[in-house]
Amino acid sequence: MKKTVTRMADGRELIYFDERDEALHDLPDRRDLPEPPPASRLRYDPLLDEWVAIAAHRQTRTFLPPTDECPLCPSTPDRLTEIPSDYDVVVFENRFPSFSDRDADIDEAVLPPINAPRPAQGRCEVVCFTADHYASFATLSPSRVRTVLGALADRTAALATVPGVEQVFCFENRGEEIGVTLHHPHGQIYAYPYVTPRTRAMLAAARRHAAETGGRSLFGDMLAAERELGERVIATNEHWTAFVPAAARWPFEVLVAPHRRVPDLPALSAEECDAFAPLYLDVLRRFDGLFGTPMPYIAAWHQAPVRVDRDLAYLHVQVFSVRRASGKLKYLAGSESAMGAFVNDVIPEEAARMLREVRP
Amino acid sequence: MKKTVTRMADGRELIYFDERDEALHDLPDRRDLPEPPPASRLRYDPLLDEWVAIAAHRQTRTFLPPTDECPLCPSTPDRLTEIPSDYDVVVFENRFPSFSDRDADIDEAVLPPINAPRPAQGRCEVVCFTADHYASFATLSPSRVRTVLGALADRTAALATVPGVEQVFCFENRGEEIGVTLHHPHGQIYAYPYVTPRTRAMLAAARRHAAETGGRSLFGDMLAAERELGERVIATNEHWTAFVPAAARWPFEVLVAPHRRVPDLPALSAEECDAFAPLYLDVLRRFDGLFGTPMPYIAAWHQAPVRVDRDLAYLHVQVFSVRRASGKLKYLAGSESAMGAFVNDVIPEEAARMLREVRP
Repeated sequence: MKKTVTRMADGRELIYFDERDEALHDLPDRRDLPEPPPASRLRYDPLLDEWVAIAAHRQTRTFLPPTDECPLCPSTPDRLTEIPSDYDVVVFENRFPSFSDRDADIDEAVLPPINAPRPAQGRCEVVCFTADHYASFATLSPSRVRTVLGALADRTAALATVPGVEQVFCFENRGEEIGVTLHHPHGQIYAYPYVTPRTRAMLAAARRHAAETGGRSLFGDMLAAERELGERVIATNEHWTAFVPAAARWPFEVLVAPHRRVPDLPALSAEECDAFAPLYLDVLRRFDGLFGTPMPYIAAWHQAPVRVDRDLAYLHVQVFSVRRASGKLKYLAGSESAMGAFVNDVIPEEAARMLREVRP
Repeated sequence: MKKTVTRMADGRELIYFDERDEALHDLPDRRDLPEPPPASRLRYDPLLDEWVAIAAHRQTRTFLPPTDECPLCPSTPDRLTEIPSDYDVVVFENRFPSFSDRDADIDEAVLPPINAPRPAQGRCEVVCFTADHYASFATLSPSRVRTVLGALADRTAALATVPGVEQVFCFENRGEEIGVTLHHPHGQIYAYPYVTPRTRAMLAAARRHAAETGGRSLFGDMLAAERELGERVIATNEHWTAFVPAAARWPFEVLVAPHRRVPDLPALSAEECDAFAPLYLDVLRRFDGLFGTPMPYIAAWHQAPVRVDRDLAYLHVQVFSVRRASGKLKYLAGSESAMGAFVNDVIPEEAARMLREVRP
């Protein structure tokens, strides 16, 4: 994998990850771009003991542009996009980030001290998986998935060194049903200036389990139980297992985890990275095969925080969909959105059976 | 308010709350109904230390029926609905509940002990606010709002005595955008067999604040600060204040709280109930006036658990919308759904200003 670091016309970083060592990226960004907008402010929500990012400028972000205006396709002589040249995988700083090193100018004179506002330091990046506008992650080749994984590991390690960053989150939102505003196959990376609520909850549970079991890994014990039972396993190979969690919150939810506990993507071995690609593609293709239509999904890489509890975290990717049946979506209404109390209408064992029976 | 307790043809309870003492409900439910289906099972998610309800039968529930098949309109000689006679406010057990006293028959032989399954004991009720199919909560009269509030208080007290119930949650989901499957104006009540994740987080934060301040109420202190600053206050009267929280997670989010700390709806005084109606109607009408189109929203009554921490909880209703602009919705994608990390694109002070400027 060859890495080429460049800058966009407005100073944002753009990094190519190429599969061929001879790849050359000497085309400059010839656009006349305005300064990147200021990013966000963090406000503390004392009622829940959580941080919320308040973004002042994202309301005007690009929204479902027609295909011939896609900003993630490579530039052509006629049309300049975010990306000057053809590419395999490319990562760049989001033009409308939730977190950045540019402080927002929100008037906070009338904020109670209890909300302790501060800059939403961090960084948001876009990861393009392929130059092919009409592809999807599920149609990538295994070698391309390997390149994407390498890029995510590279960015995770790099963003961990950015001042203020406490956690790096790599994810893919797929499908208009969950609000995706650009169809070109891409993922995102959020480098948060705090440890996120879900991660805090997972670490607290892992800490209790370790204390009660003489240091055992909670996720590791769950994975071992699922591998032994097999009932909710979708696919497995030497290094990875994909399974539906027994207490799944979403109609279709799969966790893909390495058999060896590692805190984050940079800690995976080359063999583990190689083994991930075919297994993950198999899972995504089964998702798309469930209802014969592209499945909206969120794929979320749960990694250890940058600084704390790295020995408690267990890297895994969680893939879940809001589609509960053909033509029907699960909405997060009162119970889920206001109370965090999930009701799942699909029995996890049934979801696992349906996913196993898909012929990709 | 006159209360009349009846039973539906399949044994479910149906309770009328009438504004006129002479109201009579002697029409029986003449339908031939099958047994109510079994409800759900709770499974423990060890990774997050939370319970998830797995429902086996709700996939077939009524989904956006045409107006002339609405099951929440009063029955007519030609068409029998869930409700035998005309009504002011009526509450009945949900036909497709997430929680009930009927255990589901899900095969759980292959569940790891760590997931500790148990019956999802509890109860789910539907609250019809008016017999008028085309009304909305915002178009109710103040006296009807008072009746609804009385019904919710009555149900909160009654459901607290149901075996297994730990928390009672009254809420309204409004709008197809958030998945509402019946247009007739109605709310719901979930009587949960556990304390919900958001409530646990709120109680933990309140407990810390009380310990640090010699017993002060966290919500009370926040409310006092907001009332003093005024910047995010939408409306206020002698007993209630409606304000946008400084760290709002949603584009438009308003908390409506009594000035006196009470744990739940049954603890409100008659004067407080009377004062609530006009203020709440004002808030809802401002929501609908924001973009000139009915606003999708969730209205969530946060109440104390039934048994624990009743001295720490502070009753309030949280009204929030996923509409962030005319024609644009906020989706809970990767950051929110997978990490619990919210990014709000509307500055809370700006949301408050917009809501104040609406002329209802």
